[in-house]
Amino acid sequence: MNVGILGATGYTGQELVRLLQQHPEAEITFLGSSSSAGAAYEEMFPQFIGSELGKLHDEQVPDDVDVLFCALPHGLTAARTAEWLKRGIKVIDLGADFRLKDPEVYRTWYKLEHPAPELIPEAVYGIPELYREEIKGKSLVANPGCFPTASILGLAPLLKKNLIVAESIIIDAKSGVSGAGRGASLGTHFSEVNENFKPYGVAQHRHTPEIEQQLSLAAGHSFKLNFTPHLVPMIRGILATIYAQVGDGVSEDTLRACWEEAYQNEEFVHVLPQEIWPQTKFALSSNHAFLQLKLDKRTGRVIIASAIDNLVKGAAGQAIQNMNIILGLPENMGLGARGLWP
Amino acid sequence: MNVGILGATGYTGQELVRLLQQHPEAEITFLGSSSSAGAAYEEMFPQFIGSELGKLHDEQVPDDVDVLFCALPHGLTAARTAEWLKRGIKVIDLGADFRLKDPEVYRTWYKLEHPAPELIPEAVYGIPELYREEIKGKSLVANPGCFPTASILGLAPLLKKNLIVAESIIIDAKSGVSGAGRGASLGTHFSEVNENFKPYGVAQHRHTPEIEQQLSLAAGHSFKLNFTPHLVPMIRGILATIYAQVGDGVSEDTLRACWEEAYQNEEFVHVLPQEIWPQTKFALSSNHAFLQLKLDKRTGRVIIASAIDNLVKGAAGQAIQNMNIILGLPENMGLGARGLWP
Amino acid sequence: MNVGILGATGYTGQELVRLLQQHPEAEITFLGSSSSAGAAYEEMFPQFIGSELGKLHDEQVPDDVDVLFCALPHGLTAARTAEWLKRGIKVIDLGADFRLKDPEVYRTWYKLEHPAPELIPEAVYGIPELYREEIKGKSLVANPGCFPTASILGLAPLLKKNLIVAESIIIDAKSGVSGAGRGASLGTHFSEVNENFKPYGVAQHRHTPEIEQQLSLAAGHSFKLNFTPHLVPMIRGILATIYAQVGDGVSEDTLRACWEEAYQNEEFVHVLPQEIWPQTKFALSSNHAFLQLKLDKRTGRVIIASAIDNLVKGAAGQAIQNMNIILGLPENMGLGARGLWP
Amino acid sequence: MNVGILGATGYTGQELVRLLQQHPEAEITFLGSSSSAGAAYEEMFPQFIGSELGKLHDEQVPDDVDVLFCALPHGLTAARTAEWLKRGIKVIDLGADFRLKDPEVYRTWYKLEHPAPELIPEAVYGIPELYREEIKGKSLVANPGCFPTASILGLAPLLKKNLIVAESIIIDAKSGVSGAGRGASLGTHFSEVNENFKPYGVAQHRHTPEIEQQLSLAAGHSFKLNFTPHLVPMIRGILATIYAQVGDGVSEDTLRACWEEAYQNEEFVHVLPQEIWPQTKFALSSNHAFLQLKLDKRTGRVIIASAIDNLVKGAAGQAIQNMNIILGLPENMGLGARGLWP
Repeated sequence: MNVGILGATGYTGQELVRLLQQHPEAEITFLGSSSSAGAAYEEMFPQFIGSELGKLHDEQVPDDVDVLFCALPHGLTAARTAEWLKRGIKVIDLGADFRLKDPEVYRTWYKLEHPAPELIPEAVYGIPELYREEIKGKSLVANPGCFPTASILGLAPLLKKNLIVAESIIIDAKSGVSGAGRGASLGTHFSEVNENFKPYGVAQHRHTPEIEQQLSLAAGHSFKLNFTPHLVPMIRGILATIYAQVGDGVSEDTLRACWEEAYQNEEFVHVLPQEIWPQTKFALSSNHAFLQLKLDKRTGRVIIASAIDNLVKGAAGQAIQNMNIILGLPENMGLGARGLWP
Repeated sequence: MNVGILGATGYTGQELVRLLQQHPEAEITFLGSSSSAGAAYEEMFPQFIGSELGKLHDEQVPDDVDVLFCALPHGLTAARTAEWLKRGIKVIDLGADFRLKDPEVYRTWYKLEHPAPELIPEAVYGIPELYREEIKGKSLVANPGCFPTASILGLAPLLKKNLIVAESIIIDAKSGVSGAGRGASLGTHFSEVNENFKPYGVAQHRHTPEIEQQLSLAAGHSFKLNFTPHLVPMIRGILATIYAQVGDGVSEDTLRACWEEAYQNEEFVHVLPQEIWPQTKFALSSNHAFLQLKLDKRTGRVIIASAIDNLVKGAAGQAIQNMNIILGLPENMGLGARGLWP
Repeated sequence: MNVGILGATGYTGQELVRLLQQHPEAEITFLGSSSSAGAAYEEMFPQFIGSELGKLHDEQVPDDVDVLFCALPHGLTAARTAEWLKRGIKVIDLGADFRLKDPEVYRTWYKLEHPAPELIPEAVYGIPELYREEIKGKSLVANPGCFPTASILGLAPLLKKNLIVAESIIIDAKSGVSGAGRGASLGTHFSEVNENFKPYGVAQHRHTPEIEQQLSLAAGHSFKLNFTPHLVPMIRGILATIYAQVGDGVSEDTLRACWEEAYQNEEFVHVLPQEIWPQTKFALSSNHAFLQLKLDKRTGRVIIASAIDNLVKGAAGQAIQNMNIILGLPENMGLGARGLWP
Repeated sequence: MNVGILGATGYTGQELVRLLQQHPEAEITFLGSSSSAGAAYEEMFPQFIGSELGKLHDEQVPDDVDVLFCALPHGLTAARTAEWLKRGIKVIDLGADFRLKDPEVYRTWYKLEHPAPELIPEAVYGIPELYREEIKGKSLVANPGCFPTASILGLAPLLKKNLIVAESIIIDAKSGVSGAGRGASLGTHFSEVNENFKPYGVAQHRHTPEIEQQLSLAAGHSFKLNFTPHLVPMIRGILATIYAQVGDGVSEDTLRACWEEAYQNEEFVHVLPQEIWPQTKFALSSNHAFLQLKLDKRTGRVIIASAIDNLVKGAAGQAIQNMNIILGLPENMGLGARGLWP
């Protein structure tokens, strides 16, 4: 099976290469980049030296690609997806173009007219733990954002069972710096970021409508929540700390049982033993997610923590998981490695 | 003026030395340590080499000490405070012994019978921005905890004016590792902490009742809140992200005006210009605190961020600020330095 | 094939588990620990949750173990190796017990009478790039130290060809903190180590005689060198910067050609393209080593840089590489993953 | 006394502001920046909020400036220095323009024709510990580079006394990321730099001729050495590890005695007690330098370590020390603060 990667020089692109090299059925045959076409990939990224990855191409996708991973800025993928689909290519979009169901919401948050609104219904939102059956056989996957993945894994089962009050949800999320991408800026400068911690995009981060959309579907009604991301002086990892009022009479055991039922057969989502709280490093370099909760009886709120690696379960790993599902391969193929510790 | 420090080898102790060396009226004449008595201070801590700080003493406080800073584990200070006060020594306790007004609450959270409950009413809670007048002339100051300082500065003015709903308050706090002290443990091991982020003490951190006590006083009624600390892979700094439902008809301008009125004459507390959000590094090594807020009209909640250096405004710096007030010195004496950047 | 690990709770032990989980022929059937026997491995190390690794045993190695990895403090392995060998177990010692050929040198540097000097000649020094043929069929491998691996890979080929002056060699090495192990101490405390850089063990580090022994063998005569390790505020990685006077008339091309000949068929050792200097992150989490050199004509010295991951090529990965060779498996089995970036 | 800063938005510029705010005789009256003229300094750098620093000006230096600190890219200062000197302004150049005595060497290493070679003899090289008497009364100071400061403090006294062999000197230096300045690039991107260590500028760093010039003066003859800088994943700090062959019969005691004589009256340079090796954090945020050495009798080489904060003793602090000397103020005025720990 031939796989191609558009946006191969970004962090998500590099992570796709690293993971796909471990995938027994996938062969990377196309690496595309608008900015670095012609460069030898392994000289740009010497961690791969000797892998025979060849040169970067421009963004013209060749015909022999079976599965195309798109790790491009928003807008660029949607404009070309129809052509790829027509050529029979499976498209897994790691960008934002097909995550939001409503093109108006897309325009509001991404300041762009959606380039292909007619394709939105063709796309499935790629969280396998929620949409496994819908993903099978699809040709277009909207791979979720990193913050939404961590948040939705923690909340969707509880909302589906109506155990928490949707409108009370507050998501206080923390991300490593790689979430900002490979572009150099003052905001990613080591000397500005290290030994520092800050919130950003307060009440205006683009992952907000994506989270609200999916959780509204889970809850069965539309609602708004608070989502505040923060920047942690580390490279990888997301931890979402989530607060919600529980429904009348709901106990901690009920909440936990709900999670355990939802995730008992999931290889990549782990409800931790009581009192072991998620750490982002549990997930480092792996496709695994870690969950914990506690009901604070003093206030009637449940506190949830959910941890993933933003570049794996939050991007490249989940994308490969989706590819495996589409192609009928074992879902964990190439994704078996556990977290790097220390 | 002669000052002494008990617990001089801990991080708070070292920070007191560093700051007091810059104080024109204070002379460090006594450094006490139960574990390292007899050791040459500057050999243990070569950053001070050539300062003529001499050897560490045991914990017998000599008579010529005018002001005593106690940076000891809880329980140890209270047991000896009466004697020090009797000898005319001003006592500034950087531990927890005199922060809680109710010895029952102390017992519940610190698992210890309070050694000197009769002294609790003698102590003033040392946040100058709230209790400046009470601090003047006092002989016993309960220097606040680091998380409480950051939280209370953000919330107290709004609660006093009844602009937010007390019971809705959620404090999601993040701390650098120095907050855990100088003791070596797996939890402070570089290889476990770096490139990692985690919550800890969920729904059971000892700063919870301290925050609740002070904010209940501000609100005029008793209430409970959620407080969740997290460990950030950095050495210093606290950022508290706070969520609260605003009162009916309360606008962002009203909230901001409340803060500005409260802090207009405060040298160490800064309401940042709109859209500039606090970063812990703004405060690094300084006694300054930084505040920002935003009202999310979609949910009716205000999001507040408050940043300090946990070892300065959250410990040693605020203690010196309190000393200055007690002694009638300019409140900023020795505390003028601004944050280290980068 | 059943593999066992003694010292399974240390960093090397955890890394062996992580890597062996990816090895198609190895099954981990025994995890031993003197300090944590009885504990559930996955609760101690939740990155492995759901892996069915079971409980930690004490250090009694069961009979069904085919290959035993020993990651124990020095002295403990040698005392029991004879028994294991008698039972037909292949032993790969990641400690120091069998690295030095001369028990006198062992006693001098490790302050211990060697527990089994008669076994020293049975052991092969496990750098496959130097001793591949000797390793095949051996039952006892002395897996090299991390600093020696990085240093020897850079120097041995040049010394064998007599291109540099042995006595002029200076190795200035830098290591991440995981090299100090999982034990908590002030020296590994995050707040002491982060934003800090220091030399340690100057002119007395135990890897000195190991490097000298191997390089003396390569040079064909005995000599001494300078080796200075430093602690870098990062978790993993070693970079050795090496200085040596070149022989008369030796050019940079000659030096490079010597390396290229030595490593042209090596999968795990890479001579980088000119002017691309090794970074430890190239090697992060992988078994690959990266080399570069430059001849400074102004001084007649060659400057060499060599980078590895101390826990992989410097410990667990090289141990598995040695296991593969002993057992006649493809040398890279289970070791294919490339470096984690970013 | 009115001081001005050109290049006030860079890291050296910010550090000058931070330190000068603590200087009792200096008032910052002019902050110049070619790129940010017109911006409010405290909004760009909120650590200074409330300091009344006003707006950034362009680079036209007003007449009322008594002392001008220039933290500009090379070439820009020299082109305007004559005019400033004519106006009676004392000029302290933190750039490279006046460090090298030979304009040919400047052209070779900086790829630029020196804009004002006739002024080079007017400048004094600003290491007070070597050139205190020459600095007094001068109007133009070439403030040394950070690597040269650390290197020269360790080596100059030993070379003056002819205790080490000049031609054998190897300087293996390590720097925090702030040394690369505030400009954003892939090379300063957090995700590329953190958990990473690398050499750079091997055998071609511009500080090489500066070090060679000063050490040749100390040795009394011209010679070349090896200098290799490395990038440490920390913000501040330089540690130079230095190797040199000692002269015949020279003992460790002789070397140490030489240093102690040279630095016995120096407030900012500390020869540490035996076996306490410099750590960069000893110097963090302070103007102090820390030295240690050991003679390795096995090889006849002395190993020296020298640590400073690159932005203080390696830039802004030393500049203020020079200003104090020029103006006849106490040399330590405004520079009393000790290192920030942890």
